[in-house]
Amino acid sequence: MLKAAIDTEVFKEAVEVVAAIVSECRLNISANGLAVRAVDTANVAMISLELGAPAFNTFAAGDSQIGLDISKLKNIVASINKADVLSLDLPDGAYKMELAYGGFKYSISLLDVNTVRKDPNLPSIQLPGKVVIAGAELYNAIKAASLVSDKIAFGINPDNETFYMEADGDTDHINLEIKAADLKTFIPAEARSLFSLDYLKDMGRVMSKAEEVEIFLGKDHPVKFVFTIAGGEGKVEYLLAPRIESD
Amino acid sequence: MLKAAIDTEVFKEAVEVVAAIVSECRLNISANGLAVRAVDTANVAMISLELGAPAFNTFAAGDSQIGLDISKLKNIVASINKADVLSLDLPDGAYKMELAYGGFKYSISLLDVNTVRKDPNLPSIQLPGKVVIAGAELYNAIKAASLVSDKIAFGINPDNETFYMEADGDTDHINLEIKAADLKTFIPAEARSLFSLDYLKDMGRVMSKAEEVEIFLGKDHPVKFVFTIAGGEGKVEYLLAPRIESD
Amino acid sequence: MLKAAIDTEVFKEAVEVVAAIVSECRLNISANGLAVRAVDTANVAMISLELGAPAFNTFAAGDSQIGLDISKLKNIVASINKADVLSLDLPDGAYKMELAYGGFKYSISLLDVNTVRKDPNLPSIQLPGKVVIAGAELYNAIKAASLVSDKIAFGINPDNETFYMEADGDTDHINLEIKAADLKTFIPAEARSLFSLDYLKDMGRVMSKAEEVEIFLGKDHPVKFVFTIAGGEGKVEYLLAPRIESD
Repeated sequence: MLKAAIDTEVFKEAVEVVAAIVSECRLNISANGLAVRAVDTANVAMISLELGAPAFNTFAAGDSQIGLDISKLKNIVASINKADVLSLDLPDGAYKMELAYGGFKYSISLLDVNTVRKDPNLPSIQLPGKVVIAGAELYNAIKAASLVSDKIAFGINPDNETFYMEADGDTDHINLEIKAADLKTFIPAEARSLFSLDYLKDMGRVMSKAEEVEIFLGKDHPVKFVFTIAGGEGKVEYLLAPRIESD
Repeated sequence: MLKAAIDTEVFKEAVEVVAAIVSECRLNISANGLAVRAVDTANVAMISLELGAPAFNTFAAGDSQIGLDISKLKNIVASINKADVLSLDLPDGAYKMELAYGGFKYSISLLDVNTVRKDPNLPSIQLPGKVVIAGAELYNAIKAASLVSDKIAFGINPDNETFYMEADGDTDHINLEIKAADLKTFIPAEARSLFSLDYLKDMGRVMSKAEEVEIFLGKDHPVKFVFTIAGGEGKVEYLLAPRIESD
Repeated sequence: MLKAAIDTEVFKEAVEVVAAIVSECRLNISANGLAVRAVDTANVAMISLELGAPAFNTFAAGDSQIGLDISKLKNIVASINKADVLSLDLPDGAYKMELAYGGFKYSISLLDVNTVRKDPNLPSIQLPGKVVIAGAELYNAIKAASLVSDKIAFGINPDNETFYMEADGDTDHINLEIKAADLKTFIPAEARSLFSLDYLKDMGRVMSKAEEVEIFLGKDHPVKFVFTIAGGEGKVEYLLAPRIESD
């Protein structure tokens, strides 16, 4: 059971955060709020979202799990006026969720939860390095890198105390270096891994709105991005597997 | 004969109103102004436009009928600066109409009027229900409906005094209900008909600028939309045939 | 050797001016500034650009000539924030030029200068007619003409003292006439030539930002456009060969 009201703007952001990784997911509903944990079909990227009850204007819910077509939901919320407040209504055992706003009522068929991939377990990986930068700056680097290559390396150089992002094209090269002094947080460690820009472009667009993104890095290890939405009441974690560096 | 000057903005709107339904039409010219009445090639939608002489800055005309390529005219006026005043010049018996603005002169070939479909007669149909809503609200409902289906039903429920628009997709459903008290006008009657969103999207884009759209409805009957342009000096009527409701 | 800093906005404009004609070129570097002279592969259009040292915030250079992939450079500078200042760095004998801004470093491979077409000689042609108009007005005429045709004629009528641009489509015709009194400069001469709008659309987009464009014309001769960029510190000349007028 779910009966809640939420600012359209906030709900839109939460949906986009998930839609950047998967097109359908299981939505976990409880009295504490909503939660999603899902991996993409290629097992390369993972999204974990916790949207707490305080992110909603009103929130009442019992424990349940439903299947959601996130791509379709994204299209629908995209058409809703940002100024509206959105009501979500899901009676116990219903096959449809109802979205209502300003006189409109959408009813969206749920997916059979058994046809949607199970929530993955949280992998336990050690990522010793950490930096915090503005989401907009991170997205700028991703966009610039995609002009010269389809891969980007993130790394930390403990010797000269810098965090760097670099991309090597066939002929061109782009490099962004940020000194520890210019970073909000800097925990040095030997760290460098290569990532696919395909995934990062979608994730970066979402992260560009975050004031602060925590980046956790290791050596040829996944990268973890942690940031908040909904004025701090929503917590997002992205995990992205590395590519093999050939040279 | 036609010799007139008109604000580009006003002329642009008049052309778009017609171009939403047909790609060519007969333009009826008289001392009272310009008039178009045309049906689309599939005989599903009809446009009737009367643009009175007061909609023009200057207007002098004798009775005549010419054939116009409305699609091409729409492209041309789209390229004209809105701040300009447009001069229209059509000498008696000419094969071309001249559009002039800010030093530019376009001469547009007319279509042989006999190759353009004749103006349809106004069908006499009784549409007992009537509501008046803002064009923007109507267009919002049309856009929302097109996310879940290719058809939309308009209807009046006299019992609970509401006007409704609803669309049924294979899996999803959208419904907008407006209470009589929230409508500018509400004349109740048993009314419900189904319409193609293909047509309504083009018509809706044009109507979205109108402060008020009168909607006339019957039971499995056409819908008639009536609104004004050019500060009230242009009157537009759209008539759209219903689809058969299968269930 | 080149070591310089320049406002991104200014560099962007200079790159676009060249990219409108060629996709690669030789860049001539000297203590006086940068210079490009290039013809397109079809030998129809020529660009000559001189960007003086005062156009830069700082400028230090020795004589050299390098090969540049202008199309790629255009994509890269398009992604740079206009507010940034751009540093250019090209050590002696280097195979790469470095662009740096706000922590980012791009290194762009140079083209082997011998694989890039040699700078053309300046053809000596007499163009007796001259007018000066605003770039925006010129571009408006080019855009309007492209609605009805793929060619435009530029001409001067010494008898009624007008400069005209006209385009003849299969069915439609567009004509812009400007009286000498409305032109900043008017040097009359028998002049009329026909030009491809394909080329003029790209050139026009660039020229639309220029407050004044000098147009030099002859009879079935090339047209020469002269204008400045970078607050007067950059001088651009476009030369465009005429098409044969068939009637």
